[in-house]
Amino acid sequence: MDKVIIVGAGLCGTLLAIRLAQHGYEVALHEKRVDLRTETLDAGRSINLALSHRGLKALALAGLEEAVRKDCIPMHGRMLHLANGETRLSPYSGRDDEYINSISRPGLNALLLNEAEKYPNVSLQFQSQCLEVDLANAAGKFKQADGSIKDVSGDLLIGTDGAGSVVRRSMMSKTTALLFNYSQDFLRHGYKELSIKVGASGGYSIEKNALHIWPRGKFMVIALPNLDGSFTVTMFHPYEGEAGFNELNTPEKVTSFFTKYYPDLLAEMPNLEVEYFENPVGTLGTIKCYPWQAFGKSLIMGDASHAIVPFYGQGMNASFEDVLVFDKYLDMYSGNWEKVLYHFQEERVKDANAIADLAIDNFHEMQNHVADPFFARKRALEMKLEQGYENYRSKYSLVTFLPDLSYSKAKAIGRAQDEWLLEAVKQDRDKTDSLDDIYQALEKLKATFI
Amino acid sequence: MDKVIIVGAGLCGTLLAIRLAQHGYEVALHEKRVDLRTETLDAGRSINLALSHRGLKALALAGLEEAVRKDCIPMHGRMLHLANGETRLSPYSGRDDEYINSISRPGLNALLLNEAEKYPNVSLQFQSQCLEVDLANAAGKFKQADGSIKDVSGDLLIGTDGAGSVVRRSMMSKTTALLFNYSQDFLRHGYKELSIKVGASGGYSIEKNALHIWPRGKFMVIALPNLDGSFTVTMFHPYEGEAGFNELNTPEKVTSFFTKYYPDLLAEMPNLEVEYFENPVGTLGTIKCYPWQAFGKSLIMGDASHAIVPFYGQGMNASFEDVLVFDKYLDMYSGNWEKVLYHFQEERVKDANAIADLAIDNFHEMQNHVADPFFARKRALEMKLEQGYENYRSKYSLVTFLPDLSYSKAKAIGRAQDEWLLEAVKQDRDKTDSLDDIYQALEKLKATFI
Repeated sequence: MDKVIIVGAGLCGTLLAIRLAQHGYEVALHEKRVDLRTETLDAGRSINLALSHRGLKALALAGLEEAVRKDCIPMHGRMLHLANGETRLSPYSGRDDEYINSISRPGLNALLLNEAEKYPNVSLQFQSQCLEVDLANAAGKFKQADGSIKDVSGDLLIGTDGAGSVVRRSMMSKTTALLFNYSQDFLRHGYKELSIKVGASGGYSIEKNALHIWPRGKFMVIALPNLDGSFTVTMFHPYEGEAGFNELNTPEKVTSFFTKYYPDLLAEMPNLEVEYFENPVGTLGTIKCYPWQAFGKSLIMGDASHAIVPFYGQGMNASFEDVLVFDKYLDMYSGNWEKVLYHFQEERVKDANAIADLAIDNFHEMQNHVADPFFARKRALEMKLEQGYENYRSKYSLVTFLPDLSYSKAKAIGRAQDEWLLEAVKQDRDKTDSLDDIYQALEKLKATFI
Repeated sequence: MDKVIIVGAGLCGTLLAIRLAQHGYEVALHEKRVDLRTETLDAGRSINLALSHRGLKALALAGLEEAVRKDCIPMHGRMLHLANGETRLSPYSGRDDEYINSISRPGLNALLLNEAEKYPNVSLQFQSQCLEVDLANAAGKFKQADGSIKDVSGDLLIGTDGAGSVVRRSMMSKTTALLFNYSQDFLRHGYKELSIKVGASGGYSIEKNALHIWPRGKFMVIALPNLDGSFTVTMFHPYEGEAGFNELNTPEKVTSFFTKYYPDLLAEMPNLEVEYFENPVGTLGTIKCYPWQAFGKSLIMGDASHAIVPFYGQGMNASFEDVLVFDKYLDMYSGNWEKVLYHFQEERVKDANAIADLAIDNFHEMQNHVADPFFARKRALEMKLEQGYENYRSKYSLVTFLPDLSYSKAKAIGRAQDEWLLEAVKQDRDKTDSLDDIYQALEKLKATFI
């Protein structure tokens, strides 16, 4: 069987390795870092993730859904912590099986690595850092732990080496030959990871089964539960201004800021001042590019080809879905890598761009909703529709709970619905029209997309 | 006075050097190539350009408008060479002073270099190739003709080093610190330069004072007059398909293609087969980025910060206009580079993005118009408006002949007008409404932008 070199043993690369091994391919999986199962992680890099239907569907394809679910904490809704101290739970869905899952990134990665190791046709090589790639020959040079350089080649090379992808950089260096389109776009916000410690009695000090949000307009904090009773907390703040990371540069300023804006959260964070200054500020960027394949021999997928901002909780899900789509074309064109790569790319680029755009939408929506009364009415109307009509799906629901609908379709329908609803509210139709009339109008709108 | 390092002695860098010298600054202008006044150019790189009001206004600021006009050939309209062999002249304007000018890039560059040399406070250094830049210290390493490395530093460093800018690459390498946004976007079309030789009697073999276009839908050829009686011809063709550069790969195929699609042109190109295979295919790309300045010490301008496709004839004009806008802030915040750079960037980025988008619009419009009867009627209606109302300005006219209107305003007004007119034609208002009613409606529309 053909040999596939995979660069990067993160979530996407490791799941891909498993799936290719299941097809019988020989897989060489190279990871520049040490084995994460043997060391503790850097501060502020342990971020946990929201796993939802698309990611679960891809895991199920590899027979791993049940194993992964054991490490998941279901989150049934958003728990909003308002500025006045009130909390409000906003369920993701009225359906029992529609929730998202908090899961630890390193925990999930370790599970996938353990699984990959079970296949005799997978070779796992840590501290093997890709330095450069020969795209046309599915080959590369990899620096080993002892400093030596190893030449590696195969029938296909796939870069799942993340937002800073070396394989993508090789494509970029062939800009003219590939007509390589590329964009990187950073928000003027960054993120910093903090934590809520395990509760006094060893339990959870705030609601376990929710994604917690402290929305404050131009900045916010979120928290996701961990299995041990702690929560991983992420601040999303601008760099500049009163709430900016650049301004919050002394322990006094940080504590005073939290006292003013996040008092209930501060009460659960005895280590705030230490963690705040230990953990780095991360950037929030979107990366898009095209093509993803070169010469029918090399490919990028996952964050390497489509890094997105985290405001839809879809980054990992999108990368896992890549594996699902790749697998479809592997079945269809097995033995013809050129066709597999081309068709995968053509289907997938538009969906990756769509979820990237949706995630940016959500960033702006989260900032603007707090103050906008029209938006509050729109959301109230939408909740009535969700409760009253089984077929009604909000944009969030289309994206999160309907893995058979592509991201690009979900984006088109979701945006059209949102615009329609906001316009309806501005015309007071939420006060004058029957819910049924509104539902029927939206069904008609949706039909234009299918 | 402060010392300014300029990287790249192309059109933008050299005009900038002159203007800074006129302000009294010490200018070190480094160019990686040999002095273009001492050598002949590479095949296919002599492309000539359309100079219009914005560029002329910037040249006038430096006192160079009259000198440059001597090298210009006025082009009063587009001469369309249709597939059936007919030609049709479409004037750019009804006003005497509104035309664009064909000018040779190397000729204009030489004129600017000659001018720059007159200033004792300008040092011109050829074969001085920027290898890397220390953005925060306005310094860089430059490789000299003898292979030695020269360290250069100043109070400000400006990269006018074109679409492949080394200074921009330095900014890109500081992505996280600068939150550097960047995009490169290539059309799936390329270009190839050819020529129409001097006419038999030493004159012009086709109309001298026009920009010639052979529009064929998904591909086209244009020709601009040169002072010696020849024309520089540019093919804009896709890479793939029947008309693709990849397909037109033998002399027979090329001649047969021209015989079929460009017979009148072929008659003027005895050297077609030689030139076609001697000259390279160039890419057509758009580059956008932000920020343009770093640490109040370094800046990029011209193609280095905003490379655009050539379909609006505005690339050089936009770069010269950069110098004009920079000069405004130099007057306003003289002595405070941080402010000069920041305000220049904030005003200019949105206009550079606007002309980039307009140029892409035009690429698509040029392809789609040929076949679209609505567009032909829209254009006919617009010509009546242009002839009947002195104040009516087409999008092209707003962009090309009104240098006091920013590109972003011109884009907003021009696009709104175009949409309105196309919609009007689809509703047959060109047949039912009076011209005066249409004009008044457009005036009202325009007023919403000002």
